[in-house]
This record gives sequence, C-alpha cells and structure tokens, in this order.
Amino acid sequence: MAIREIPYKIYLSESEIPTAWYNVRADMKNKPAPLLNPGTHQPMTAEELSQVFCADLVAQELDNDTAYIPIPQEIQDFYRMYRPSPLVRAYCLERKLQTPARIYYKFEGNNTSGSHKLNSAIAQAYYAKKQGLTGVTTETGAGQWGTALSMACAYLGLDCKVYMVKVSYEQKPFRREVMRTYGASVTPSPSMTTRVGQKILAEHPGTTGSLGCAISEAVEAAVTQPGYRYVLGSVLNQVLLHQSVIGLEAKAALDKYGVKPDIIIGCAGGGSNLGGLISPFMGEKLRGEADYRIIAVEPASCPSFTRGVYAYDFADTGMVCPLAKMYTLGSDFIPAPNHAGGLRYHGMSPILSQLYDDGLMEAVAVPQTAVFEAAELFARVEGILPAPESSHAIRAAIDEALRCKETGEEKTILFGLTGTGYFDMVAYEKYHDGLMSDEVPTDEQLALFRARLPKVD
Amino acid sequence: MAIREIPYKIYLSESEIPTAWYNVRADMKNKPAPLLNPGTHQPMTAEELSQVFCADLVAQELDNDTAYIPIPQEIQDFYRMYRPSPLVRAYCLERKLQTPARIYYKFEGNNTSGSHKLNSAIAQAYYAKKQGLTGVTTETGAGQWGTALSMACAYLGLDCKVYMVKVSYEQKPFRREVMRTYGASVTPSPSMTTRVGQKILAEHPGTTGSLGCAISEAVEAAVTQPGYRYVLGSVLNQVLLHQSVIGLEAKAALDKYGVKPDIIIGCAGGGSNLGGLISPFMGEKLRGEADYRIIAVEPASCPSFTRGVYAYDFADTGMVCPLAKMYTLGSDFIPAPNHAGGLRYHGMSPILSQLYDDGLMEAVAVPQTAVFEAAELFARVEGILPAPESSHAIRAAIDEALRCKETGEEKTILFGLTGTGYFDMVAYEKYHDGLMSDEVPTDEQLALFRARLPKVD
Repeated sequence: MAIREIPYKIYLSESEIPTAWYNVRADMKNKPAPLLNPGTHQPMTAEELSQVFCADLVAQELDNDTAYIPIPQEIQDFYRMYRPSPLVRAYCLERKLQTPARIYYKFEGNNTSGSHKLNSAIAQAYYAKKQGLTGVTTETGAGQWGTALSMACAYLGLDCKVYMVKVSYEQKPFRREVMRTYGASVTPSPSMTTRVGQKILAEHPGTTGSLGCAISEAVEAAVTQPGYRYVLGSVLNQVLLHQSVIGLEAKAALDKYGVKPDIIIGCAGGGSNLGGLISPFMGEKLRGEADYRIIAVEPASCPSFTRGVYAYDFADTGMVCPLAKMYTLGSDFIPAPNHAGGLRYHGMSPILSQLYDDGLMEAVAVPQTAVFEAAELFARVEGILPAPESSHAIRAAIDEALRCKETGEEKTILFGLTGTGYFDMVAYEKYHDGLMSDEVPTDEQLALFRARLPKVD
Repeated sequence: MAIREIPYKIYLSESEIPTAWYNVRADMKNKPAPLLNPGTHQPMTAEELSQVFCADLVAQELDNDTAYIPIPQEIQDFYRMYRPSPLVRAYCLERKLQTPARIYYKFEGNNTSGSHKLNSAIAQAYYAKKQGLTGVTTETGAGQWGTALSMACAYLGLDCKVYMVKVSYEQKPFRREVMRTYGASVTPSPSMTTRVGQKILAEHPGTTGSLGCAISEAVEAAVTQPGYRYVLGSVLNQVLLHQSVIGLEAKAALDKYGVKPDIIIGCAGGGSNLGGLISPFMGEKLRGEADYRIIAVEPASCPSFTRGVYAYDFADTGMVCPLAKMYTLGSDFIPAPNHAGGLRYHGMSPILSQLYDDGLMEAVAVPQTAVFEAAELFARVEGILPAPESSHAIRAAIDEALRCKETGEEKTILFGLTGTGYFDMVAYEKYHDGLMSDEVPTDEQLALFRARLPKVD
C-alpha cells in the first residue's frame, strides 16, 4: 500500500459523529463491582446516589446492560463545535524512529479545554440543565476538567462552582483565568466556604490542598445547596460511557481504510480517556470477535495498576463519597511531586479495574523524565505540544514502535493523545533545566497506605 | 435552505489543500511601491536583498507578475500536518446575536504555534534549508511568529535564533519555553550579542526593548554570521504570498456550498493574515469578476490605516532595513500598552497599503475593552478562546452582524480567526479586573512622529 493512500489526518464528516454512546459493561461477563454506601457497606441505591448526582446520570451509572445509549440532540450539536476529532497517522514520528510500525493517534486536544474532558462535561451539564438545576459543583487539579466543565456550563447557561486544589490555583493562574472567562467561580481548596474545608484548615493551617480534599468540598457544596449537584470528570462508569465517543470515532475512521490496530495504548489516571478509547475495541474482544493488546500507561510515581491492589476504597480524602472497588494505592496516598496532574489519582475506574483483573488488558508504569523526552521528540516531529498526561501514552507507543524496529514486525499501534500542554510550560521548563524528579514510592510506603484500606467483607 | 445543510465546520480533504500560492500583485493595476535602499533611496536590487534574505524568497518578494507560484512538495507535506484548517459556520454566535447575518470564520489556531504564522514560517525555513544555510534569525514580540519559526526549523533541522522583545521575554516565560522545546535559542532584546544591541543598551540602560529594536538585532545577527539569513513574519510581499493559502482554502470551502461572502474582515498588524485571507477575493475584485466589502481592523491605540499616512518609512528602529512605502505612524511610534502584541507595528504591508490607497478596502479602528468584550462573548458561545489580535476581527464581525439585525439584511460575513489566546491570560485577567486601558494617541503625538518620517523624493 502506498504511504499516501492514508491521509495524515482522517476526519469523519459531522454526520458520522456517533449518535449513541457505547456501554462496554453490557458486554462484560464480570461486571464492575457496585459502589457501596460508606456507612452500611451495602450497594448504593439510585435514590442514595441521586442526592449527589443528577437522576439521568445515576441511571447511566447503574446501567450494566444497555449496550447503546442515545446521545441527546443538544449534546450532538455541541459535539459538532469541536468534533469529530482527527485520527492522525504519525508519518513523521514513524520516519523519525525508522520503525516498520504504523502509528496512529486520536487527538482530543483541538478544543479550548485542551483535552478530551469536554466530551463528558457537556453530557453532565446537559443532564443537570434538563433536571432544572441551577448549577453544578466539581473539583479540579491540573485544571483540564474544570475548564471543560466551565465551557459546557457557559454554553448551557448553568452556574459552575469549581474547587481547585490550592497549590494549582496559585501555580496555574492562567488555568483559573480561562475558567473565569467562561464565567465559573473558582475557589482555592481547602476553603472556608465548606465545613470540611474549615475542618481541614483548622487541623492543617498551612496545607496546599489535595484532589481528595477538593472532592470532599465540592460534594458538600452540592448537597447543601438547593438546585446543585456534583459532577466528576473521571473514574465513574458514566464518564467512561460518554468518553466512548473517542473510541467509536477512532474505530470508524480506521474501518474506513480497513486498518485494524494490533496494540491500543492510553494514559490512565482515573481512566476516562483510556476507557473511552478502548471501549468499542474491548467490546469486540469481549464478544470474541477480535483480539487486541490493550495497554494502560501510568506514572511510576502513582502506579495504581502496576503496584496497587484490587480492593474497595474511598474515592476522596473526606470519606464522604461511596466506596469503589478498584485498583488503588490507598485514599491517603500522595504521589511524589510530578507534572501529570491528571494522573495523580490514588485509584482507578472500576470498569478498567475489573477488565485488568480479568487479564483483558495490560499496564505499564513509566518514569517522568522518559515521558518528557518522548513529549519533546513528539512535539518536534509531529508539531503538537502534548500535555504531560498524554505524553505517557506517547512514551509507551514509541517504546512499542522501537520494539518493532528490533523485531522487524509491522505492527499497527493506536494511541490516545488526550490533550495539549500549553498550560504546562513550567513542567517543560523543569525538564529543560534538568530539574525533573523520577522519585517513586518504596514498597514500605505502599504497604503502609495499603494497611489503611477500609475493611469490606 | 435548512440550517443544517451547511455543517458547523467545512473541512476540505487533504488533496484539496492548495498546490500553488496566489500572488495578488499579478492582478493589481497599481503595484505596491518597491523597497528602497535606505542610503541611496534607489529600489533594492535582488543582489542587495540577498544579503539579508534567501534567494528564492527575494525572487518571490520582487515578483509582481506571476499569479500562481507552485508550493514545493516538502511544504505541502508539512501543511498536511495541520491543514486544511476548518472554515466554521458560527451558528452559535448568530443565535446569540439573533442576527439574520450568516457568519463564517476561517480558524487558523489549531496548531501548536497557535496562529496562521506557521504557513509562512515553514515556507521561509524551507527555502533557507534548500539554499544550504545553517540557520535563520528573527525577532518576535508577542511570540506567535517565533514559536511558528521554531517549529518549522525543528522539523527541517535548521538552527533558529530568536530575538524576543525583553519585556515579552520576561512577561511571557511560557512562550519562550515553547520555543525552547522546539530547540530555538531565545535572546532577550536588546542584548549584548549584537553591536546595535550594545549601542542601544549603552544609551538606554534600563530599556525593555521594542519590536523595531529586535528586528535590527536579528538582521545584524543574520548578515554578520556565515550561513544565516533573516526571516520576517509579516509586512513583506513574500509573507502575504504564503498566507494566501488561508484565503484559497476559505474560498474553496465556501464555493463547495455556493456561498459568496458580502463582507470579509481581518485584523491587521503588519497585514499577513488579512492579506492572505482576502487575496483570492481581492483578485476577483481586481479582475472585475466580483465585488466584496473588505475591512481591515486595527487597534485604536495603533491606527496605521485610519490615522497614519501613506509614505516611505523605515521598517525598524535601527534603520538598517530597506525603506517601505506603507501606511505608517512613523518608525519610532510606540503605541500605548495594549494586549494585542501582534498589532503593535507602526507600519503596514505595502500591498495592503496600495489596495487601501486605491479605495479597494476599508479600515476601522476598535478600542481594546470592546475587543475583549467580543472575545469573551465569542469564547462562551463558540467554544474557542481567541487571541487578542484575532478578537479585533471578531469585534468588527459582531458589529456588522448587529447592523444586519437593525436593517434586517441577511448578509454573509467571513472573518479570519487567526489564533488562540492560551498565552494571553494576563490580558484576560486585566480585562476581568477592569484594568484594561483604552488609551489612544492624540493628534499632536501623531503629528510629531509624522514629522520625523524620512524625506524621499
């Protein structure tokens, strides 16, 4: 096949944007474990979940059976503003690596939120609006999710309250300013606006906050204010459902050219991007129609899959959220400072955890410096400055392509390029100045956090 | 016509990317005035220009006759990495304004340089490489051009030396860091690395630099180092030629749907975006085949078209560059602090200056606060955070659309959305905090600078 037969970028037409999300749970023999009430350890009911989440989203969260869930027209219209996203053939990267492998990436960064997070933000905001709510609350660490949600809320005329981890709030004033441009109110967490924030500040006056703490504040703000619900950008089943649009588009684009990937790679923090990208491929695998190697890539500093355990754990620091069964490092595990803010979560999507436990996917942990080496190489040859999170997938894709170079195999690699790094230049600067840390937790540290996991029969 | 017949985004296929640039000079009855030797006031010869610029680019600079100049295959390949750029129908903006006008914008911001500058950067870097040069030098103010050139040079393996206005270097460390990621060396200007820099620093020890000064340093660095030439991101005829790819794509996309714009709008600093966007439309107008209203939008703080004079002037502060006949405010005019760094140039493209003088286009100056109002409105409804420069065009497009609302006219408006504002959040912050200045020069100030224009017979 002549190299030019496949274009640099495969764009679907707008009429080919998926009109239904694909729910991989419908094809899973072993369903993900249910969320548990943290007090009673009984499965959370729809009624209990509806205190925190919108009703339609609760239904999606609990639906393990419906394979295709229609995308409401209003969400389809919003998707048309920035979708379909391009599936790119990485000709320049292949040439640079001199690999016989064929590399494709699904690029989700060409929208102002800078990442794939917008796919679920608009869905969650839409259902909140449909329910007649005034607004939503959420937390944000690196800021991609908060930005995406601000955009979705601005579009729908919904109030948006973001609790931003204090250290990010101070170090990333530009992310905060983008959210302000979209009309969101951004509060550094912990704050005096919630009881849980007041309590944490009283106990740790100088704290710079954490994601787990910001989650607790956002949940409290949602349940104590009439007309508000809480929304979350990753981990949950509903989020993976919305993100299936990534994989559905990628598969449709590849199918157009008769291309079947051998290896599918995605970075994994809470699992939203990876879960979305792989969903239709995993569906084929689960139904015995095709086989794929599927690889989750995580930072060596926060290795939930590769060094965590599969157990029920708290989703947040304040322990107000339901218990989730997932690969976890323990809810009070704090990774060493790294620059992939979106990959610092202690746990992992329950869906992906079950699939991993069933041996249906692999995981690899990569050190930070090697990730930035891959990021810079990619930026120079492919012309896109990747986010640190996305660069974990680039690192793994390059490693696989180099393996093909050794063996001479012409494998087809597909990876998810979740976003751009325009707000991460402090991280790039540290890399250029040789100040990047490759610190990883010791076995002793991990054992300590593991011992504190809640006891669930 | 049903609203859905035209998609949100019209993408050409890669095979429809133009294979030749269009040179509007070929259709101009009154050609732009030639560049003059600053010493002799005689037209610059190709030989003289070749001291500073690459040979092939000199030929393009002087070619007033060839209508279509083929785009070399290597540049076409690079264009495929980020082109064709989308032509967007601004359905959401139309709905928000409740205007009967139909609004389209050509979006050039979906590449890592964040603007249209990459279209000419790759062309200029390509010809430098073809000539066997080691590298190129340039200046950058806001940073878009420097970033674009760094990307092009990284792709071709060419050295890239950027002189960055010192105040930008200090206030925009992230822009600098992106250039570093692409392997460019970035020097704050004025610097001790050039004689002109040393001279300026001796005379003004505390100066924070200016674009005119950085140009002088970059030119000196090019002519004193073997294997280097100077490249420039705007103003020149060659740059408008390369940027014609914007207009050619926009016209091809509109033609597909039988759409003819009534009004074409672009922001104008040196004129690269506007000149590129309008070129094929202006060609039709010059040949009497069609008529369009064409509007240049400039900041009220730097009103070259609307309050300048059409005269020969220096292109740089150090007065080492050729004289250009253009609409100018005087080469030592410094606009009041504003946030559209790409629109702070004292002069204007000689091609656009001639077209404006011949009454073939209009110009309008807009105050800064009104520009940011338009920017924020646009970001919220269209989902793209625009650069301050681009937002000048948005302001004018909104004003025209609101006029249509008053009169009931269903005009079709096309504007150029040159780039994204991810590195301009300090400006947005000032706007949100009510600290934006709308200062404009007084008539007395303008008269003062006008009196210092060089005398050319």
